[in-house]
Amino acid sequence: MLERMDRILAAFTAEHSRLTGGQLAVLAGLPPATAHRLARDMARQGWLERVEGGRYVVGTRLWELANRASRELTLARTARPFMGDIHAVLRQHVQLGIMEGREVLLLERLSHPGAVPVRASVAGRLPLHLSATGLVLLAHAPGEVQQAYLEGPLAAFTPLSPTDPHEVAAELERIRARGHAVQTGYLEPETTGIAVPVRGRGEQVLAGLGVITPAGDPGGRAPAIVQALHTAAHGIRRTLRETGRDRQA
Amino acid sequence: MLERMDRILAAFTAEHSRLTGGQLAVLAGLPPATAHRLARDMARQGWLERVEGGRYVVGTRLWELANRASRELTLARTARPFMGDIHAVLRQHVQLGIMEGREVLLLERLSHPGAVPVRASVAGRLPLHLSATGLVLLAHAPGEVQQAYLEGPLAAFTPLSPTDPHEVAAELERIRARGHAVQTGYLEPETTGIAVPVRGRGEQVLAGLGVITPAGDPGGRAPAIVQALHTAAHGIRRTLRETGRDRQA
Repeated sequence: MLERMDRILAAFTAEHSRLTGGQLAVLAGLPPATAHRLARDMARQGWLERVEGGRYVVGTRLWELANRASRELTLARTARPFMGDIHAVLRQHVQLGIMEGREVLLLERLSHPGAVPVRASVAGRLPLHLSATGLVLLAHAPGEVQQAYLEGPLAAFTPLSPTDPHEVAAELERIRARGHAVQTGYLEPETTGIAVPVRGRGEQVLAGLGVITPAGDPGGRAPAIVQALHTAAHGIRRTLRETGRDRQA
Repeated sequence: MLERMDRILAAFTAEHSRLTGGQLAVLAGLPPATAHRLARDMARQGWLERVEGGRYVVGTRLWELANRASRELTLARTARPFMGDIHAVLRQHVQLGIMEGREVLLLERLSHPGAVPVRASVAGRLPLHLSATGLVLLAHAPGEVQQAYLEGPLAAFTPLSPTDPHEVAAELERIRARGHAVQTGYLEPETTGIAVPVRGRGEQVLAGLGVITPAGDPGGRAPAIVQALHTAAHGIRRTLRETGRDRQA
């Protein structure tokens, strides 16, 4: 039953946040009677809510339960002021992501109205090898995790997305050597992502911190962006340590 | 089973974010065998995670599911830049809350390291009549909701907390008349809260936006704070309308 509830909740996204019982059945791959019954039960508990047109939305109660004690919230809240500093200077998207399976899960993003369009939203996911934030996480993952990842399949979002495991492996090596990741056009033809690791206790990589800018970099700003990201990552680590949250996060 | 899972999740708070199966049983009021079995099942689904010492934390998966499509996140993200502006000027806590039953649920808070201590954290709750943000929400709730609330019980956190329903009713009247709520010492002896409503479509009150400052107000800043809050609430409403989120939120 838990697994079926998980599938119901997974049907909701930022783009499709209001779903009928019938849509839930299709998206969750459940018999309609099962989907309807589970949705009703979850609504009774406040985990879903009924809104106009007989549609469901994710309920306030579930949001509350999931956020009140979450380590993700702790990490995101600690990072946010530092992300704000970068955002204020660069006027582009700044994002923080952690590794979840074969994807980067975005914990936080600060966006600028005039910034380039981006693919995923907060609590959204992207394949690790297509996002700079994901690449930096994959580059610092244990060897066996990298190896399993490279066995694929390696999804492609644009003609520039790398799908050759040897190419990606060589890139991970470069990322470790120079300390940051850069990708241009892997996710969107016209955007560049730049990211650095955020470290916790020891040298453990907790998250990736990245900026998304228009591709082309006419001002040669990449070195300055990398420097700003490293400085912010250092600040986040220091704050986590000072507040004793580096263990928790 | 859903109700028991809800009780397990409700046992986790920002202060007690790592709990053993035994602690879960006590806090959730469940037989130990039931609590242990449910926690194991939830961990299998990623809704909880096992960490060192056999303790559980709320899992990344649940955070992801609850946040990806949440209206709370939409409202909080829309409000945050405006809250940031207030925060930058006043250097005190700024918070956004919605009404959930007899309590205000805090969706977002921006805090300043040197600011006064506060009771609740994000996704935390406070009794409506003890917080300025809650009072502003209660003052604009339907008459029958106010009436039911005033039938009590009205909790007291300090000797200054109002527990007389007539006193609270008169205060709600004043809040509607002047457009903002002020409380001093209801939650903490040494703090003052000031809050205004955030409106959506029509004149519907979606949330309360408040500032928490040290009690005493030596600089006579209250009128300026109220003005800043009204301006921010207006900006939030405008942004929700411009992005078509005023319906959703």
